[in-house]
Amino acid sequence: MAGGDELSGRIEFLLEIDKLKSVLRRSLLVDGSRFENTAEHSWHLAMAVMVLAPHAPEGADVVRAMEILLIHDLVEIDAGDTYIYDEAGRADKEARERAAADRIFHLLPADQARRVDELWREYEERRTPTARFAYAIDRLQPLLLNAGSDGASWRRHGIRHSQARAVNQAIAEAAPDLWELARSLLDACAAEGSLADDRPTRTP
Amino acid sequence: MAGGDELSGRIEFLLEIDKLKSVLRRSLLVDGSRFENTAEHSWHLAMAVMVLAPHAPEGADVVRAMEILLIHDLVEIDAGDTYIYDEAGRADKEARERAAADRIFHLLPADQARRVDELWREYEERRTPTARFAYAIDRLQPLLLNAGSDGASWRRHGIRHSQARAVNQAIAEAAPDLWELARSLLDACAAEGSLADDRPTRTP
Repeated sequence: MAGGDELSGRIEFLLEIDKLKSVLRRSLLVDGSRFENTAEHSWHLAMAVMVLAPHAPEGADVVRAMEILLIHDLVEIDAGDTYIYDEAGRADKEARERAAADRIFHLLPADQARRVDELWREYEERRTPTARFAYAIDRLQPLLLNAGSDGASWRRHGIRHSQARAVNQAIAEAAPDLWELARSLLDACAAEGSLADDRPTRTP
Repeated sequence: MAGGDELSGRIEFLLEIDKLKSVLRRSLLVDGSRFENTAEHSWHLAMAVMVLAPHAPEGADVVRAMEILLIHDLVEIDAGDTYIYDEAGRADKEARERAAADRIFHLLPADQARRVDELWREYEERRTPTARFAYAIDRLQPLLLNAGSDGASWRRHGIRHSQARAVNQAIAEAAPDLWELARSLLDACAAEGSLADDRPTRTP
């Protein structure tokens, strides 16, 4: 068959990335029934890009943001999911993920491996409006799952309002409408106790 | 906030489609550990489009095929997954899925609901090279999972080589390279017994 070796590499890659379905995240599904895995999370992010495209910043390439989010967590097959609030785990995250990218992406033919690597690095570097929008979506989705499940994951890990606000601040630069929504969800969650409420008390 | 009502609809839709992560399919993961759900399946299909784009037929819009595959199974939230080999279940599939589409897509603002509906109908009608490529990918992926897991799902349901070949024949029109691969996988699976071998015996 024409290009048979290249096709074999593509198929090997597709079989390998099936493992992403077994990488568990800290978020629970909205119905609280179980932890979310990274493959279905990636699907949900691509859907969020499609649906929230009208809120993307100027200059963002929405299709590219979708592709970025489909591939951005493939490195977790080797490196595992590092919880956004785990500061120790984040220290060597970069090196672990770079090694994973080198192994996994290079199952593909060279030109495709290069393209996936470019998408992934664009995401990690957050220099383009596209990457910043993708990152904002990747922050917003777990917030929606948490808000939708009465803070199931935040409660388990004792996350405070100030932490959640700091972690999600990146949404503000990329998509002001989405940040306004996120901020009001975080406030509501703190008020009802699904997020530990450490908001400064307001002077009257 | 500008367009607040539209944003609320988008968020409601994103929370609703979280349910797709709880719709189980008949395929097992490659490692055989559990059934695949439809959300992670949809992610895998979008990845397969990205990676197998060089095998797409002339005139296929690869980005659109990816979007089609991200949304094509949303109707299963209400209608459930109908097994490709379940002929009785397929009889009223169309009506059940049409009702599901009407409910779920219309959580979105009207213009977005219309676009998702168009993508879904394009897939269902299979008239364009884009839809035929998307369908071929949707056939090939479970075949890869089955071949990769020693026919776990085929064995459970006693699927025969002739059935698998008939169901996957659609790959032939859309992507001859992929059909050549599929055909050789099906033959190998029949030969090793992970697919019931009803191939006609060859005269010498």
